[in-house]
Amino acid sequence: MTPGKASDQKHAVANLSNLYRIFTVPESPDSTLGRIDQEISQNLNGFLRNHIVATEQDLTIIEQGFSSPRIPEQPTFVSDYTEFLLDTLVAQSVHTAAPGFVGHMTSALPNFMLPLSRIMTALNQNLVKIETSKAFTPMERQVLGMLHALIYGKDDAYYQHWMHDPECALGSFCSGGTLANITALWVARNNLFPADDGFQGIAKEGLYRAFRHYGCEGAVVLISQRGHYSFGKAADLLGIGRDSIIAIPTDADNRIDIGELQATCDRLKEQGIRIISLVGIAGTTETGNVDPLDKLADIAEQQGCHFHVDAAWGGPTLFSETYKPLLKGIERADSVTIDAHKQLYVPMGAGMVLFKNPASLSSIEHHAEYILRKGSKDLGSHTLEGSRPGTAMLVHSALNIIGRKGYELLIDKGIGIARTFAAMIDADADFELITEPELNLLTYRYVPAPLQALLPKLPAGELAAVNRELDALTMQIQKVQRAAGQSFVSRTRLSRPQYDNDTITVFRVVLANPLTTPEILREMLAEQKQIATEDPEAAAIVAGLLESVAED
Amino acid sequence: MTPGKASDQKHAVANLSNLYRIFTVPESPDSTLGRIDQEISQNLNGFLRNHIVATEQDLTIIEQGFSSPRIPEQPTFVSDYTEFLLDTLVAQSVHTAAPGFVGHMTSALPNFMLPLSRIMTALNQNLVKIETSKAFTPMERQVLGMLHALIYGKDDAYYQHWMHDPECALGSFCSGGTLANITALWVARNNLFPADDGFQGIAKEGLYRAFRHYGCEGAVVLISQRGHYSFGKAADLLGIGRDSIIAIPTDADNRIDIGELQATCDRLKEQGIRIISLVGIAGTTETGNVDPLDKLADIAEQQGCHFHVDAAWGGPTLFSETYKPLLKGIERADSVTIDAHKQLYVPMGAGMVLFKNPASLSSIEHHAEYILRKGSKDLGSHTLEGSRPGTAMLVHSALNIIGRKGYELLIDKGIGIARTFAAMIDADADFELITEPELNLLTYRYVPAPLQALLPKLPAGELAAVNRELDALTMQIQKVQRAAGQSFVSRTRLSRPQYDNDTITVFRVVLANPLTTPEILREMLAEQKQIATEDPEAAAIVAGLLESVAED
Repeated sequence: MTPGKASDQKHAVANLSNLYRIFTVPESPDSTLGRIDQEISQNLNGFLRNHIVATEQDLTIIEQGFSSPRIPEQPTFVSDYTEFLLDTLVAQSVHTAAPGFVGHMTSALPNFMLPLSRIMTALNQNLVKIETSKAFTPMERQVLGMLHALIYGKDDAYYQHWMHDPECALGSFCSGGTLANITALWVARNNLFPADDGFQGIAKEGLYRAFRHYGCEGAVVLISQRGHYSFGKAADLLGIGRDSIIAIPTDADNRIDIGELQATCDRLKEQGIRIISLVGIAGTTETGNVDPLDKLADIAEQQGCHFHVDAAWGGPTLFSETYKPLLKGIERADSVTIDAHKQLYVPMGAGMVLFKNPASLSSIEHHAEYILRKGSKDLGSHTLEGSRPGTAMLVHSALNIIGRKGYELLIDKGIGIARTFAAMIDADADFELITEPELNLLTYRYVPAPLQALLPKLPAGELAAVNRELDALTMQIQKVQRAAGQSFVSRTRLSRPQYDNDTITVFRVVLANPLTTPEILREMLAEQKQIATEDPEAAAIVAGLLESVAED
Repeated sequence: MTPGKASDQKHAVANLSNLYRIFTVPESPDSTLGRIDQEISQNLNGFLRNHIVATEQDLTIIEQGFSSPRIPEQPTFVSDYTEFLLDTLVAQSVHTAAPGFVGHMTSALPNFMLPLSRIMTALNQNLVKIETSKAFTPMERQVLGMLHALIYGKDDAYYQHWMHDPECALGSFCSGGTLANITALWVARNNLFPADDGFQGIAKEGLYRAFRHYGCEGAVVLISQRGHYSFGKAADLLGIGRDSIIAIPTDADNRIDIGELQATCDRLKEQGIRIISLVGIAGTTETGNVDPLDKLADIAEQQGCHFHVDAAWGGPTLFSETYKPLLKGIERADSVTIDAHKQLYVPMGAGMVLFKNPASLSSIEHHAEYILRKGSKDLGSHTLEGSRPGTAMLVHSALNIIGRKGYELLIDKGIGIARTFAAMIDADADFELITEPELNLLTYRYVPAPLQALLPKLPAGELAAVNRELDALTMQIQKVQRAAGQSFVSRTRLSRPQYDNDTITVFRVVLANPLTTPEILREMLAEQKQIATEDPEAAAIVAGLLESVAED
């Protein structure tokens, strides 16, 4: 059904004259939408299971349901629309909460999130200013304070002083890690080129005059080659250009190579190029590794530059007494990104950046005549975004309801099952573990046993050719498995030292859903093996590979 | 109550061992949260009325409820937390849906938004890529197509070609108008300094090298002095600096002065400064006026520069056959910002920027190894944000359920009641209408009748002194009225030609809530009069003013 077509003609006027009703009369529980609403309330997992179709439809077919660019002239009945929505959109959405969905960083949500989200939506606050958010403003400031305390652990007097200070902000709440990272680099850039004798600062005069005033030929950001793509975006946006993201090589464990970093810093100094920020990663997107943050902090200190940690994924590891030491040094960072919609288990659209120094954000402060006046506690004077929803409430609720110990359990469980899965892969002769889980991510690929034994012995050229075939095999298995809808792994490309730094395609697994069991992972491997043998395209690649091995 | 304290000690272990329950067992309808959830579902207006306290509590008292920076060690029961939330947060939030809340651009929501939002939250899609959003991606592309068609009105073949094209995007969905405006200027900046012989483009090489390569001394954005503060933020972020936002004076109706604009363009050309974008406003934030877009388009064409229209507020005026002509020329804009959480009546956190040319966004395109691969239809390759929720679904639903005609009714009604209110103010000798409503915004202030008659006759110095007293009076009335909680107007500062361009403080009213009636506005004026007479501070100012007048 195309919305806006069915049954409209005869009821359109009735609908129009009833327009005010939609602002005053709630959906009846007996209506289609009311029933769906109750179904979700009473049995979320059942709703997802019942309404999301497992097997994938071709995208071009799905697009047919969303092909008209015309806004319907006449109103559509809510019930008609709801049916359309269930059949066309919900049915073909992704079951991100499924325990077999271990390909991306989206997981099941705690059930209390749904009714709490409804409260948030019903209140429809705008966090840009107190006048449209009142108590939500101190609540968000507390959330930022709580995360700040988790990272920096200052004493109570510190937070009593700073948490609700109108002139400052301990951080900035935003829609996600990308904006958090951009905000951090924006602050770092502005603090590197402040007002000076005869110069009013980069915020006011811009980058061109800043470079000229400070006699600088370039300004860069140093991050390992496993850095998130948002840093490239930030460099473009901030006017330093993508080339100013200097990708430092990593060691065999995907951690930034400290020697290379030091050498690069020295070279930059000779060239008159300034460092806007050193970036450490706590949980790389592709492999979940953690840079040696303490050593990075040393170098940042020695260089006198900003030190940012992208802990969008790994930040909540701080909840775990066992694994917290992996992040040692994060408390020395000038800024830290944490995504709430990842391992804080909040719905999509919540990120934060925290600053060690409550004055840091002053470098991007802005005001207006109708809001954000100087001295107000309006949060909007220190955020990249303007109008923003009260999502911090969901973080506040999760921190309280789950508590430090609850999160610890989730973190420990995730890392535990990742190790179990790694052992499972290691024990299976047809799979090759590519990166060990340091946190709860790992990568691997399917390599038929006879071939796996030979790989280390192949000459360089032949090895590359075999890897290209394996890349195609990995892609095919991933695609077929995703389409079958039982489980989902993602894929990425990684350069690997064991293969002369050849870049290979691998399966990528993220284990953050507490409902994922070893049994589910075992079945996932079995399905991949089955695809490798039974899917014609995959089987052909396997056959070709085994044939070439037999010839050797 | 401080969350995390009460009743935890004895039940903590039970809660911990039950952690998985929160991912699998929905809130019981009999629980505190379950009951609240039903209350909202069955009677949203009643919930807001019952739980939001009308009279304002002092912010420092509210802050006491959010003073601990410590994440509770032990889990908190959902019921305990819910009670805390109701008492401390919800009670002291802002009733933005109240028909007397006419101070900001947040309004009542259609009731179907709540159950639909629950579906969206339950599905927890991530729109950055197809693998976590599947059908949501074509759905969002259709929403962008629908808004594109509303503005640019291309034919069906055009949308059939471009709407789902993997290489292009008709626009970018984001969390709000600020990001939309930033995205538009980012695109405009990058397209102004493209790759060239010996230069790889500003996105890659940065602004400093771009200026040097193109022999340019500066790059500016031209916008009227009524421009939204997000443009200053954008200029800072994009590295051109806040000084590069050239604020063009406005005429008596708050529209950009075309003569001044033309003269500025000529002057810039002589100075070797390039224009990144001309910006027209369709519905200024403070007064709701619309720039002469057709004339701006002429100048942009003549200058050969990008033309952006900030229609965050006024865009939906296009739904109205009656008022659409006010936006004539918008179809010539290279990019247009529209906020969905404003006059599309979607919950907070939804904005869009549309581009006339489907290739425009290529200038900010980005890729990664694990997602957003070249040729994929992943939306994330053309957005400023990374992970994003499926909010476009709520826009999709509203466009279908309300339809063009429903929105027309809302727009016409808003402008109609604004005119009614303006007439009411004009007819009352104690109020002075400062700006007439062109759309559904107006500004005014309280000026006691005897004084009002004298104002035009006062000499400049004396006029300014009186205006400062009136400013204080306006602020006091606004503050007291807000605290009383019956109705809410905002305030801003505007330079006014009738007072030698003196900047005065005024009440600002936004009339977009369909539930606001003339009767409510009449009571609002009566309350303001009453405050002016009965509030000691206000009354003292009034007495002082009348005395000074009597002396003259």
